[in-house]
Amino acid sequence: MAKTNDIAAAGAAADVPETMRGAVLYGPDDIRVVERPVPAPGPGEVLVRVAMCGTCGTDLKILGGHFPQTPPFGEYIPGHEWTGTVAALGENVDEFQVGDKVCIEAHAGCGSCDNCLVGRYTACLNYANPSKGHRATGMTMNGGFAEYAVHNAKALYRMPDSVSFEDAVLITTAGTGLYGLDVAGGYVAGQSVVVFGPGPVGLMTVQLCKQMAARQVILVGTRPSRLEVGKRLGADHVINARETDVAEEVLRLTEGEGADLSIEASGGTDCPQQAIEGTKRGGKILLVAFYPGQVTLDLSAAIRKDITMYTSRGEGGNNVKRAVAMASEGKLRGAELVTHRFPLEDITEAFRVVRERDGDPMKVVLIP
Amino acid sequence: MAKTNDIAAAGAAADVPETMRGAVLYGPDDIRVVERPVPAPGPGEVLVRVAMCGTCGTDLKILGGHFPQTPPFGEYIPGHEWTGTVAALGENVDEFQVGDKVCIEAHAGCGSCDNCLVGRYTACLNYANPSKGHRATGMTMNGGFAEYAVHNAKALYRMPDSVSFEDAVLITTAGTGLYGLDVAGGYVAGQSVVVFGPGPVGLMTVQLCKQMAARQVILVGTRPSRLEVGKRLGADHVINARETDVAEEVLRLTEGEGADLSIEASGGTDCPQQAIEGTKRGGKILLVAFYPGQVTLDLSAAIRKDITMYTSRGEGGNNVKRAVAMASEGKLRGAELVTHRFPLEDITEAFRVVRERDGDPMKVVLIP
Amino acid sequence: MAKTNDIAAAGAAADVPETMRGAVLYGPDDIRVVERPVPAPGPGEVLVRVAMCGTCGTDLKILGGHFPQTPPFGEYIPGHEWTGTVAALGENVDEFQVGDKVCIEAHAGCGSCDNCLVGRYTACLNYANPSKGHRATGMTMNGGFAEYAVHNAKALYRMPDSVSFEDAVLITTAGTGLYGLDVAGGYVAGQSVVVFGPGPVGLMTVQLCKQMAARQVILVGTRPSRLEVGKRLGADHVINARETDVAEEVLRLTEGEGADLSIEASGGTDCPQQAIEGTKRGGKILLVAFYPGQVTLDLSAAIRKDITMYTSRGEGGNNVKRAVAMASEGKLRGAELVTHRFPLEDITEAFRVVRERDGDPMKVVLIP
Amino acid sequence: MAKTNDIAAAGAAADVPETMRGAVLYGPDDIRVVERPVPAPGPGEVLVRVAMCGTCGTDLKILGGHFPQTPPFGEYIPGHEWTGTVAALGENVDEFQVGDKVCIEAHAGCGSCDNCLVGRYTACLNYANPSKGHRATGMTMNGGFAEYAVHNAKALYRMPDSVSFEDAVLITTAGTGLYGLDVAGGYVAGQSVVVFGPGPVGLMTVQLCKQMAARQVILVGTRPSRLEVGKRLGADHVINARETDVAEEVLRLTEGEGADLSIEASGGTDCPQQAIEGTKRGGKILLVAFYPGQVTLDLSAAIRKDITMYTSRGEGGNNVKRAVAMASEGKLRGAELVTHRFPLEDITEAFRVVRERDGDPMKVVLIP
Repeated sequence: MAKTNDIAAAGAAADVPETMRGAVLYGPDDIRVVERPVPAPGPGEVLVRVAMCGTCGTDLKILGGHFPQTPPFGEYIPGHEWTGTVAALGENVDEFQVGDKVCIEAHAGCGSCDNCLVGRYTACLNYANPSKGHRATGMTMNGGFAEYAVHNAKALYRMPDSVSFEDAVLITTAGTGLYGLDVAGGYVAGQSVVVFGPGPVGLMTVQLCKQMAARQVILVGTRPSRLEVGKRLGADHVINARETDVAEEVLRLTEGEGADLSIEASGGTDCPQQAIEGTKRGGKILLVAFYPGQVTLDLSAAIRKDITMYTSRGEGGNNVKRAVAMASEGKLRGAELVTHRFPLEDITEAFRVVRERDGDPMKVVLIP
Repeated sequence: MAKTNDIAAAGAAADVPETMRGAVLYGPDDIRVVERPVPAPGPGEVLVRVAMCGTCGTDLKILGGHFPQTPPFGEYIPGHEWTGTVAALGENVDEFQVGDKVCIEAHAGCGSCDNCLVGRYTACLNYANPSKGHRATGMTMNGGFAEYAVHNAKALYRMPDSVSFEDAVLITTAGTGLYGLDVAGGYVAGQSVVVFGPGPVGLMTVQLCKQMAARQVILVGTRPSRLEVGKRLGADHVINARETDVAEEVLRLTEGEGADLSIEASGGTDCPQQAIEGTKRGGKILLVAFYPGQVTLDLSAAIRKDITMYTSRGEGGNNVKRAVAMASEGKLRGAELVTHRFPLEDITEAFRVVRERDGDPMKVVLIP
Repeated sequence: MAKTNDIAAAGAAADVPETMRGAVLYGPDDIRVVERPVPAPGPGEVLVRVAMCGTCGTDLKILGGHFPQTPPFGEYIPGHEWTGTVAALGENVDEFQVGDKVCIEAHAGCGSCDNCLVGRYTACLNYANPSKGHRATGMTMNGGFAEYAVHNAKALYRMPDSVSFEDAVLITTAGTGLYGLDVAGGYVAGQSVVVFGPGPVGLMTVQLCKQMAARQVILVGTRPSRLEVGKRLGADHVINARETDVAEEVLRLTEGEGADLSIEASGGTDCPQQAIEGTKRGGKILLVAFYPGQVTLDLSAAIRKDITMYTSRGEGGNNVKRAVAMASEGKLRGAELVTHRFPLEDITEAFRVVRERDGDPMKVVLIP
Repeated sequence: MAKTNDIAAAGAAADVPETMRGAVLYGPDDIRVVERPVPAPGPGEVLVRVAMCGTCGTDLKILGGHFPQTPPFGEYIPGHEWTGTVAALGENVDEFQVGDKVCIEAHAGCGSCDNCLVGRYTACLNYANPSKGHRATGMTMNGGFAEYAVHNAKALYRMPDSVSFEDAVLITTAGTGLYGLDVAGGYVAGQSVVVFGPGPVGLMTVQLCKQMAARQVILVGTRPSRLEVGKRLGADHVINARETDVAEEVLRLTEGEGADLSIEASGGTDCPQQAIEGTKRGGKILLVAFYPGQVTLDLSAAIRKDITMYTSRGEGGNNVKRAVAMASEGKLRGAELVTHRFPLEDITEAFRVVRERDGDPMKVVLIP
């Protein structure tokens, strides 16, 4: 790995400037857009001109300074849901051409540890160890709140022109849902699925399940506006957990049997228990959210019902490639989730909107 | 199991007559519609008023007298793709009500052998042994070329009124394709799939794969008329194997990589080899057809490419239930495959049409 | 199903008496050995002369009157870990001959519901519904604390003479562990496995894992005497959870990585959390115990580590058949766990020993 | 990747000489032991002092000049079953220390292609492309018929001192069998397994199946001496295919049901058909051999029996790590298969012995 990793030092790349604007985290809640050298792609890496970068709940933790294993304050550029156009290729990269439109998986595994070797690279045992080849863009290494970002070729996916950058930001999100579905077996055709949490992951997952021919998708949430969006995007039924007993309603909608698959994408500490109660005997629960604290549940009930509990995080198993294919066919409506757009310079304001939920934001994106 | 299994002996069931018209096989190619007692459903069984019964290639073997383990000539009523309305319930059946519209799986496993216990009931080790509870309707026991037929409750699936009987005949066919997809992993979203054989199974499978969000479905056949139907039903590409090198064209359509999944539903002895050549390294082949004789292939190539070869027959794993759900959502176009309708009395003519392919028949149905 | 199900009414079966001694539960903690008619096997059922019946923790709940869906007080004969010799065959049973030595699975599924159809009969949707064919011997129907018991042929497994009845009682227990391993993938060769709970299930599972070539089996418990037994039966390491931090020690023994598979067979409410902490990223947890109340855990940690949590109960998937094969090869040491033997007449005393742990009982058996 | 990859140019590594003796293939059947520069390990690579290198059937094709994608004549050092001691570490390697005893997987995947990303690196889509990081030692790049060899750190496995180098050569072979078992489900406990082909792969697989608690292992071959070795290593039954009808005998040994799993490791063109006939309905066939030409079989029979046909080649899925664990526990008897030892200088004579089967060689090893 080259010691110098600036594009300037690496030699002239056509049309790539030497410096760029990037949002650097200087300390808790202190993010500033400053001038930085454009990074150079190493062997197997690609430099991308970032077109757009989404924000998500994890970014709030990151900005607060509470995320582990990040680059140091003063150097760290977050942003892990970005898309753009290939600007330069590192050594040995022939999978892409300059000018290709690409979207990303956040995680590139080391490709060498026990978990990567069996295809579970989101659980890479060399997490946050770039010398082994691992990169979680915007988390353990610099990411997409900048004009340019470097990523591993294997975590980039080429898109046709028909897919917009706004759709592309949400393809990464769809990849999270799709990887979870993959881990849980991937075969929902004709089945009843409950999705907890009408955030971006949940709402993309609603679409994915319908596109994969689920019999019915039941969306559970607390904000009527979000549930409305869910309905528009394909949910067959919505349950407002503030007004209705979730498990009872799920059982009613499934002729007393319960859902074949319950997907917990909300992070609400009550939801895992509701999922256990609303899932069919022999059914599955998929957990893709994180909780603010300990979760208390009737674990015996899950065992008595022979429920398997799958977990996943990130977008593994090549699922972003599948999501790109679905988006290319017009089967995923990602852009509809983008409610707010800000130029990169307004990143602090953008995160205020996210934090305060000002204007009921769904997906807030930054445009460098 | 009651020794007497006529409805008359079993006592009066409202509105069910004592006798019915049924097509009985008296010998090779000698099938006659005659008057027969209406059968009585035993414990766990259901009597169905047959609305329609499809014909398939297997029926030609059956009529020719070449099918193993059937009831004896003079008693045997074939027909294994039927649908209808529940007419009477056997002991312990409360899953249905008289009047329910139902479609079927042909196979009911014994529920007790090693294979049934692990969920592989189409490979029931008590095949053709009714005393153990196995029934392959129209094959090892009497079937649906009659006004009434008995079947095991567990092989019947309730349908909403919105699904027509013509669609319902094809739901059994769809179940064959869907079970194969299930066996092969069930997760085709975003993938490239090749389907060999634009017969009813192949054409329903094309639809299933598209409904489950396959990236592209490539249909291979030899008759242009069939390939046209395939295109209409959703195939992204069609290959006429008489005119084009199949494997080469598949490789071209998949950027040189080959298909993720190749489904052999044609029974052409050349096709397994074409499938091996056109399938991606690490990919899958699903075999759901039968061959007229030995098959010669470059097995080493399959091994060199790490290809897994799945097989399935019939409609196992509850997949007809999934197919009903898909049909109920309007996602399966079965009725479009029904090209010929005959009253039961014309069964000999109907099979002449099937055998001689007179008028390019796709699915020929009989209406008792 | 015959209305009269006594052997006397069913006609003379050679050498089977008309009445037997059986332990009937008359109310909470009121079990009495009384004279009862010998039951008659129905179609697909077998009458077994019980040689021995084990007791387990579930029996304490049953005797206390706290178990759901049992037969009524005054009729109910518990006992679900029994073994014996075939005494008479019901209609259509040819899998066995009178005189065969057999051991059992407690659960016989209905063979017809969605879950049975896909091979998950321990999660039978007709649980406790004998008219559908379900039977959980000694739980939802009469069991083995009697001279004779009826069971479904499909839940019986023939054993060679070389397997003793004491071993056979523990084969059912081994089947519980083996089914759990099956559900969790079944492939532990070369892996590190932690087993929580050195009770009969845990101690049989230790043996199973070693026999299936696990790299190391780490047994976690609180009673030194039990851990000693575990060591004797093959555990490579034991951890006394009263003295040692479990997760730390597991990490130490696995070079910091954690176990590939953690099996929770203790029912201790702290153990699921310890399992999460001690399991490798991308690893598995298998839950086969029940908890006295709610369980509180850091569910986020399981998600962050990509851990799949499997559950199982009972002995499904034909695993008792596999366990019989292993026992026949001398690979399972079940009899060593039998610490106390009582004649059936002393059942109340036997359960006092179990409840009060008088004399450190491991497996207490009753001999009718 | 550095253009200069000699250890001399890379700077002094303690105790590693600048040149070594290696067997270079100059043309078909023209292999000569010559002086060569010791190669330097690149980033993520390790230099190993080779202690021993096995020969196998593939080497005969390689020496004949018939293997695709090898290095050019005059540079190419074959040998893909080697073991030794770590001599020097490339950049970013901290998984090993100089002096560690290691054995190998032949294949290192690129870690980036679709197949590597989902854990199927033996089907790497960048096969034979070292610039992408792929290496098949001794096949697509230089291997172990030399004093020193470079390999990717991820394809090396540390062994305890208790495992001899002769055992270690066979650990790679065991890895082939174990990976096949993994691909086919990995759960053979209590099952009947047939192994075709008592060569090194077959004989290691016999041991693996027994160590994983198979109920019975039936070994099929043609040479009595080999079948005797199989018996000694644990086969419960042997079948001489020259004298006995294989399928009939397998059916007899499995009470008419057939084997749960048949493993074809012989490369005999008749064997796949025998495997189909001798495998249980719903059973599995694993193909790990290559055939001299086309294979003709009754594919319909495989479909009628619901048989899944798995294939694998090489040692994927981290299975060599599992095999090392088994060998460390003394569960694998590899050294017993080593029948002939030659110094590297006698490589031509060694391959004469292999080719002419002079002295009934099983595993012939070379000692540099």
